[in-house]
Amino acid sequence: MSLVVVGSVAYDALETPHGRVDRILGGAATYIALSAGYFTQTAVVAVVGEDFAQEDIDLLASHKIDLEGLERVPGKTFFWSGVYSADMNDRTTLQTDLNVFADFNPKLPARYRSYPYLVLGNIQPALQRSVREQMNGLRLTGGDTMNYWIKDYRDELLATIRGWDFLLINDSEARMLSGQHNLRRAASVILDMGPSTLVIKRGEYGAMLFRRDSYFMVPGYLLEEVFDPTGAGDCFAGGFIGYLAERGCDLKSGKVDRRDLSRAVIYGSVMGSFCCEEFGPGRFRTLTRDEIDKRFAEFRDCTEF
Amino acid sequence: MSLVVVGSVAYDALETPHGRVDRILGGAATYIALSAGYFTQTAVVAVVGEDFAQEDIDLLASHKIDLEGLERVPGKTFFWSGVYSADMNDRTTLQTDLNVFADFNPKLPARYRSYPYLVLGNIQPALQRSVREQMNGLRLTGGDTMNYWIKDYRDELLATIRGWDFLLINDSEARMLSGQHNLRRAASVILDMGPSTLVIKRGEYGAMLFRRDSYFMVPGYLLEEVFDPTGAGDCFAGGFIGYLAERGCDLKSGKVDRRDLSRAVIYGSVMGSFCCEEFGPGRFRTLTRDEIDKRFAEFRDCTEF
Repeated sequence: MSLVVVGSVAYDALETPHGRVDRILGGAATYIALSAGYFTQTAVVAVVGEDFAQEDIDLLASHKIDLEGLERVPGKTFFWSGVYSADMNDRTTLQTDLNVFADFNPKLPARYRSYPYLVLGNIQPALQRSVREQMNGLRLTGGDTMNYWIKDYRDELLATIRGWDFLLINDSEARMLSGQHNLRRAASVILDMGPSTLVIKRGEYGAMLFRRDSYFMVPGYLLEEVFDPTGAGDCFAGGFIGYLAERGCDLKSGKVDRRDLSRAVIYGSVMGSFCCEEFGPGRFRTLTRDEIDKRFAEFRDCTEF
Repeated sequence: MSLVVVGSVAYDALETPHGRVDRILGGAATYIALSAGYFTQTAVVAVVGEDFAQEDIDLLASHKIDLEGLERVPGKTFFWSGVYSADMNDRTTLQTDLNVFADFNPKLPARYRSYPYLVLGNIQPALQRSVREQMNGLRLTGGDTMNYWIKDYRDELLATIRGWDFLLINDSEARMLSGQHNLRRAASVILDMGPSTLVIKRGEYGAMLFRRDSYFMVPGYLLEEVFDPTGAGDCFAGGFIGYLAERGCDLKSGKVDRRDLSRAVIYGSVMGSFCCEEFGPGRFRTLTRDEIDKRFAEFRDCTEF
């Protein structure tokens, strides 16, 4: 069932211990959509500048991603550059040029408004809310945020996530949002904020899903080589909601199969792991659904007891 | 089937964010034996001083731990004191008084020599080897080591673990021993050193088991409160080998059921998690096998998909 993805489409300059690239397609909406596109019909709402290259349009289009909501305006595309630490657990931002993204005001094409699935990449919470208000008949709304919004836009963020079915953040964000160091307690505080489902991403250490009555944990996939972790969290989000959309899950009704949620976490982990295998979204040029399902099976094989 | 545990029995002074104790039973052999005792007949080989208290003898004896190999000699018992960081992921050693442990030369009571299971806590590698040489008919030998032996006694350590069936270390030790940062690669290097099975403990992030042809991963149990992590790694070891001994597993023959190994990792994780719930070995005063099996089932429930 159709999914709307809202967020940034950007160019990144990256340096990891394995090399560097000066300009490569990036942005949360890019990674979420590329990942979700393996599971469900996916439509993007984002803004790019005049410099946005045809080959990048072609990559997205080759994944059958609906680009009617990808607005092109005068100016330059959002640009970010960063460098990773030797173990790639930390990264330093060198440059952030918002460019056309500074005035991003998401407008949904009319036919997107009745799509049942919505995932909101990390943008201003008020913008996230405005998108949700443009839609009707949603079965599932969720998204990401970051430390900046948690710290300086707390009230706005709380008002936004109150209406979400799931929140998907990393462990340090969960601690900051809840004021609790222990993740079990942090989860309990955050579930009181509105979302019925909380997913906490822990990078190489895996992920956890919390609901009022249950939780689920998965260790991180053991890659032989992490080439570039950029976008892995967003690819996790894309795999997670993409699978739920493929299954037609309805979190609104409360009648959701726990197994679907657990498997969505596994597909999220699978997509995040593939993302790390090449620079930027490079792995998605060749990745097949068959490879995805094989890694899903490998996850089962190495965690079942 | 009977298990011999060799290592330190000590007194610890501990400070965690939850409080402090000036003198509490500790030591690798203590924790391994207390943990393994829930699964199999367990015998300890260690040394204590004249100050070793009757109540601590009583605690071990109440777990039906065979203490014939617990030598008591003139002098004081090994003493260690340390303080944990606020998140308890780091600890600083304040004091280490080897005392009677400085001259520890493990001597096995005659009837221990034919026991089929042997686990060697973190002591001088040459001593670990001497114990193994005193035994015959072993179905399974394994143990722990630490950065000090890896760095300064490398050749001796390599000669020792060459004869082991399993090595059980933490992630930083695995990296140091192998010279590889990536744990999948580290495991491959270490498996070439002799042991057919490598278990890497990752503290709150869980554990991984590697063999030539397969691997298994489990996330860490999510405690609501980590009270004191002292001994958790040793309790993991005790649960791991205790379960394999209970099952009568024979790693020597190579005909070991993968499921037994995976479940041993889960029981190790379960025992490590209980250990953190009170100061020192306090939790073992009340812990029952029924509680252990319940947590094992909870692990299945929160990782199955």
